[in-house]
Amino acid sequence: MVIIMKPHTPKEEVVILKQRLQEENVEVNEWDGENFCVLGLIGDTTKIDESKIEANEYVERVHKVQQPYKLANRLFHPDNTVIEVEDQIIGGRDLTVIAGPCSVESEEQIVEIAKLVKKSGAGFLRGGAFKPRTSPYSFQGLKTHGLELLKIARQETGLPIVTEIMTADMIDRFVEDVDVIQVGARNMQNFELLKELGKTRKPILLKRGLSATIEELLMSAEYIMSEGNENVILCERGIRTFETYTRNTLDLSAIPAIKKLSHLPVIVDPSHAAGLWWMVEPLAKAAVAVGADGLIIEVHNDPANARCDGQQSIKPEKFDRLMEDINTLAQIGSRNIYETINI
Amino acid sequence: MVIIMKPHTPKEEVVILKQRLQEENVEVNEWDGENFCVLGLIGDTTKIDESKIEANEYVERVHKVQQPYKLANRLFHPDNTVIEVEDQIIGGRDLTVIAGPCSVESEEQIVEIAKLVKKSGAGFLRGGAFKPRTSPYSFQGLKTHGLELLKIARQETGLPIVTEIMTADMIDRFVEDVDVIQVGARNMQNFELLKELGKTRKPILLKRGLSATIEELLMSAEYIMSEGNENVILCERGIRTFETYTRNTLDLSAIPAIKKLSHLPVIVDPSHAAGLWWMVEPLAKAAVAVGADGLIIEVHNDPANARCDGQQSIKPEKFDRLMEDINTLAQIGSRNIYETINI
Amino acid sequence: MVIIMKPHTPKEEVVILKQRLQEENVEVNEWDGENFCVLGLIGDTTKIDESKIEANEYVERVHKVQQPYKLANRLFHPDNTVIEVEDQIIGGRDLTVIAGPCSVESEEQIVEIAKLVKKSGAGFLRGGAFKPRTSPYSFQGLKTHGLELLKIARQETGLPIVTEIMTADMIDRFVEDVDVIQVGARNMQNFELLKELGKTRKPILLKRGLSATIEELLMSAEYIMSEGNENVILCERGIRTFETYTRNTLDLSAIPAIKKLSHLPVIVDPSHAAGLWWMVEPLAKAAVAVGADGLIIEVHNDPANARCDGQQSIKPEKFDRLMEDINTLAQIGSRNIYETINI
Amino acid sequence: MVIIMKPHTPKEEVVILKQRLQEENVEVNEWDGENFCVLGLIGDTTKIDESKIEANEYVERVHKVQQPYKLANRLFHPDNTVIEVEDQIIGGRDLTVIAGPCSVESEEQIVEIAKLVKKSGAGFLRGGAFKPRTSPYSFQGLKTHGLELLKIARQETGLPIVTEIMTADMIDRFVEDVDVIQVGARNMQNFELLKELGKTRKPILLKRGLSATIEELLMSAEYIMSEGNENVILCERGIRTFETYTRNTLDLSAIPAIKKLSHLPVIVDPSHAAGLWWMVEPLAKAAVAVGADGLIIEVHNDPANARCDGQQSIKPEKFDRLMEDINTLAQIGSRNIYETINI
Repeated sequence: MVIIMKPHTPKEEVVILKQRLQEENVEVNEWDGENFCVLGLIGDTTKIDESKIEANEYVERVHKVQQPYKLANRLFHPDNTVIEVEDQIIGGRDLTVIAGPCSVESEEQIVEIAKLVKKSGAGFLRGGAFKPRTSPYSFQGLKTHGLELLKIARQETGLPIVTEIMTADMIDRFVEDVDVIQVGARNMQNFELLKELGKTRKPILLKRGLSATIEELLMSAEYIMSEGNENVILCERGIRTFETYTRNTLDLSAIPAIKKLSHLPVIVDPSHAAGLWWMVEPLAKAAVAVGADGLIIEVHNDPANARCDGQQSIKPEKFDRLMEDINTLAQIGSRNIYETINI
Repeated sequence: MVIIMKPHTPKEEVVILKQRLQEENVEVNEWDGENFCVLGLIGDTTKIDESKIEANEYVERVHKVQQPYKLANRLFHPDNTVIEVEDQIIGGRDLTVIAGPCSVESEEQIVEIAKLVKKSGAGFLRGGAFKPRTSPYSFQGLKTHGLELLKIARQETGLPIVTEIMTADMIDRFVEDVDVIQVGARNMQNFELLKELGKTRKPILLKRGLSATIEELLMSAEYIMSEGNENVILCERGIRTFETYTRNTLDLSAIPAIKKLSHLPVIVDPSHAAGLWWMVEPLAKAAVAVGADGLIIEVHNDPANARCDGQQSIKPEKFDRLMEDINTLAQIGSRNIYETINI
Repeated sequence: MVIIMKPHTPKEEVVILKQRLQEENVEVNEWDGENFCVLGLIGDTTKIDESKIEANEYVERVHKVQQPYKLANRLFHPDNTVIEVEDQIIGGRDLTVIAGPCSVESEEQIVEIAKLVKKSGAGFLRGGAFKPRTSPYSFQGLKTHGLELLKIARQETGLPIVTEIMTADMIDRFVEDVDVIQVGARNMQNFELLKELGKTRKPILLKRGLSATIEELLMSAEYIMSEGNENVILCERGIRTFETYTRNTLDLSAIPAIKKLSHLPVIVDPSHAAGLWWMVEPLAKAAVAVGADGLIIEVHNDPANARCDGQQSIKPEKFDRLMEDINTLAQIGSRNIYETINI
Repeated sequence: MVIIMKPHTPKEEVVILKQRLQEENVEVNEWDGENFCVLGLIGDTTKIDESKIEANEYVERVHKVQQPYKLANRLFHPDNTVIEVEDQIIGGRDLTVIAGPCSVESEEQIVEIAKLVKKSGAGFLRGGAFKPRTSPYSFQGLKTHGLELLKIARQETGLPIVTEIMTADMIDRFVEDVDVIQVGARNMQNFELLKELGKTRKPILLKRGLSATIEELLMSAEYIMSEGNENVILCERGIRTFETYTRNTLDLSAIPAIKKLSHLPVIVDPSHAAGLWWMVEPLAKAAVAVGADGLIIEVHNDPANARCDGQQSIKPEKFDRLMEDINTLAQIGSRNIYETINI
């Protein structure tokens, strides 16, 4: 941690601050420049509360040296985390593809789509049972009945299922019924939910919040991991920017950034990113080329009658063609990002 | 709702879409321009799902005419909502000031600060018992013990208390112990929590999410109101932008916008907005001048030793001087925004 | 154009507005909903000034139906624009790669780099002679001497040269000396410069401004084209967002968007987007996969001693390996975005 | 300057970097933490190019200690800069109000508005002669004829005139004809124009770019000042964010920030910020309350027929009432921000 004092800070105030810092068992170095005095802290600074230091009226700014996350940090865990779910592997050599409708609508719908995406090569089935919607008047999902339908689709196809949890009181049910538990973008900083999920051992698919920095995403992973659950899969799904042509702006630079900062697997959601079905294909390809560990894609057999997000769902035939292209892309080895970015 | 069809859409596709729309009991008007065909819908379009229409591959864009919120909409409720809590009124002629520390730390601390802010004229005491923190390693609040200490401070001063809820399972306790229940920015779209709070009749202080649009804030208020609780107070607390000098960017234009769109009271949090104690004063004054119904301000007797957010807390003496200035500002009548903005 | 009137607008005010609009030779349709009256305009609305209509105090909102650009619009020019420069083609079947240092530093430096990037397969040499720098104290480029050195490098390698113009008074010199004239992000809305460049017939590489929408970028292209110069190449180079890990956020969804909206070629600058040399490779691959027509990449033989932007420049060996990967990617046909996105 | 080295950087690479830094006449301190080695530089670091250091592949991050601007920095110039124009003072005790139409349309129009705003108490007349417009098909201003009409209005009222320059070749004419030369938001980083304006001694009104940070605004002021012209007035006019209800988001926290960082006067443009005439009044009041040195407001006698930006112009009667309120606000001393924010 580096502390920059305000110009003209009285000598005695620097002494007082240094003493206070030394009480926290860190070594304090001081440099005196022409206008600014700088304090550099060595030792375990993770217990030092930045905001307390910034509250000191003689402090101009505080810069962190060490990242505030440890368990999610590649520095202390150089090897990639690989997560096994049934016969599928996430974060390994092969690309993981999760596909399915925005929401589960009926047994017929979910089973049909499950069969189609499996045939095209998807490794997981997605489908929302509990749906977070901006409007209280929109379809909120089939809830527990939706979970039952997902289980039927799993039985019919063998595909493990991924679905979103919205409240901590459903955790036991999800642990029993579901293979990968998704935390949606709007709940990325629902810290109580994260802590409870940390007490399970289920793989958690943690989506980046619309306006969350990469560091905040990793801090949310840290919440889950600090309770003992290390099976965290990160997901980039677009951030909120000034551009309105797309619903969000897919931040593909987050993929190499996360690969460098963390050992956790990271996948991309091209459907929510743009909110436009015709952009799913090019963005999915770009995600593979940039080095993502996988994709989560919305596929619907009748988008124009989907009960939610039809505008960003692609049809099974289009998904089938996309999977072919993705396989070719993956084969030319463009996934080896981590090796590349390390010196 | 206005639907713009893609150029060169076959005539029969327009006919199919029109028929489908008419089945939803709306009247459909069609205009044929040189390049675009436009459909205009008249009637109750709130039940029509935009995303379904956008999923139609011949649709270029959809524009809403009517706002998607009803209960929060000034159009259907022209008079200001006024909320009474004990002897305090929020949304009326007088400015509401809520003050207190970021987090409750001890009986001594909270009682002392409560007495001081009361003396300066604050109408409510704030203080966090459950604290949402970016890091799992930061102080998470005194939790239920914090609620007990807030109740002691209320008993000592008579000030009603405002504190943040993080999970639905605490609602009964909060309803019993607390006067105004705060929903933090990170939970603004925790829809399950909002729905449960909607079943109580407690005043809810709903903070705008870091990257929430004004419309999304009003939709979250609608979630609470649609369950029967109309006692919603909105709060602008800064949005996330590219500027990094301040922690967030206070969006004061949201105040006249909300006053125009909605009848709900709206207050401003200048402490979280900038995250800098020395900006609280100018931003608080600006908030009053722009027409906010009140302020929520972090006050701490020893910011440099506060257990959280000391860098944005002001000392009681500074708060006292600020209250004097605010009173003068309020008296010159700059609050009458609503009358001004209507023709 | 669709005009939504305020609720409760007096009938006579609607009549007055309709008359005024009809004077501009457009047909005006009216729909009367329960709360809102909507006017729909048919005909050539490009001459109607939106801001005048919005200035009417009874107007709630105005939505455009037609894009405000014509010459850059794919609607009126369905085929891709293909630009020929010497033996190079931009916007055709093959990918265009422009490479070279941030700034021209010496004859030795620019000639050496030119030879190296040519050997790796680059089709154009880039190099800044006039440098827009945030600080007046930073190196501002070798200016006209830099142009002379670029010409020497062209002579030695045969590579056409691309370099940035900063003022209209240099246009004659650039037309004479340079093969593609670059307009930097900070000058994207320097409309006087755009108009003057529109009077030449040189290919113009127009970079998207840091906070320009896709529509604004196309409007700036329209400025150049409306003066007669249709040789415009667009360039996505990252937009400003709240994320600070990367200098800017590369918006790859802009590529399929621009391909859909416009017939102009569009390339990607992965160097400026992230501002991090180790991200150039993954982002360049993603750009090819998403369907860009080309890349512009900063290559320097000694980044740590580069006179500017060394932190985002890659070394010639790295560029060489990257070109191999890009060739493989391009061959698997991931470029065929335009055919894909059209129904 | 503080340099954080990558974890596991070889000792000899640190030594090489230190030697290179010492050659630039700065003292280099080294701290070795458990994972990171940190270098702290003392001395004049303004000549050290950050990007060169970041190009070193062993460097993780670089933090500046000193602001990169000197002439605009309050640290080296503690007293407020006060600029005199005729009998008006900008940056002094009194508030400066600049008012007038978006663009000069006719002699009758500009003279009438000038007389009205003068009567209400404005100190300067604004009016665009050269207009930067997003579309090449929009009205581009009366150009030099507009300058002539402004001069007539000045002669009739005695009000000094403020108008925008777009190209360096007009500087001589502007110096002769105009009292304050405005640089628009889109030209804030047109560095060549800034340098040329720096060679004059005319007061320059420098508007913040739509996506410019406060530091970048001050660096642009530094460009003008480094050429010798210290008469720079800054202007906050709204930044680009994700919120679309208002055209831009007025960043009023920029005012106390600039007052702390710089000695230059700073005014606010509430008209362009929101782009909505009915928000001008509340935002103008907030700007005065937050401590701005002045306001620039668009006033038009017939907004619905204005040739540009009618939607954000207020009528003279509204301006007159606003001036009364602003006078009251200013009198209660809310301008004393600078004294407040200093310890």
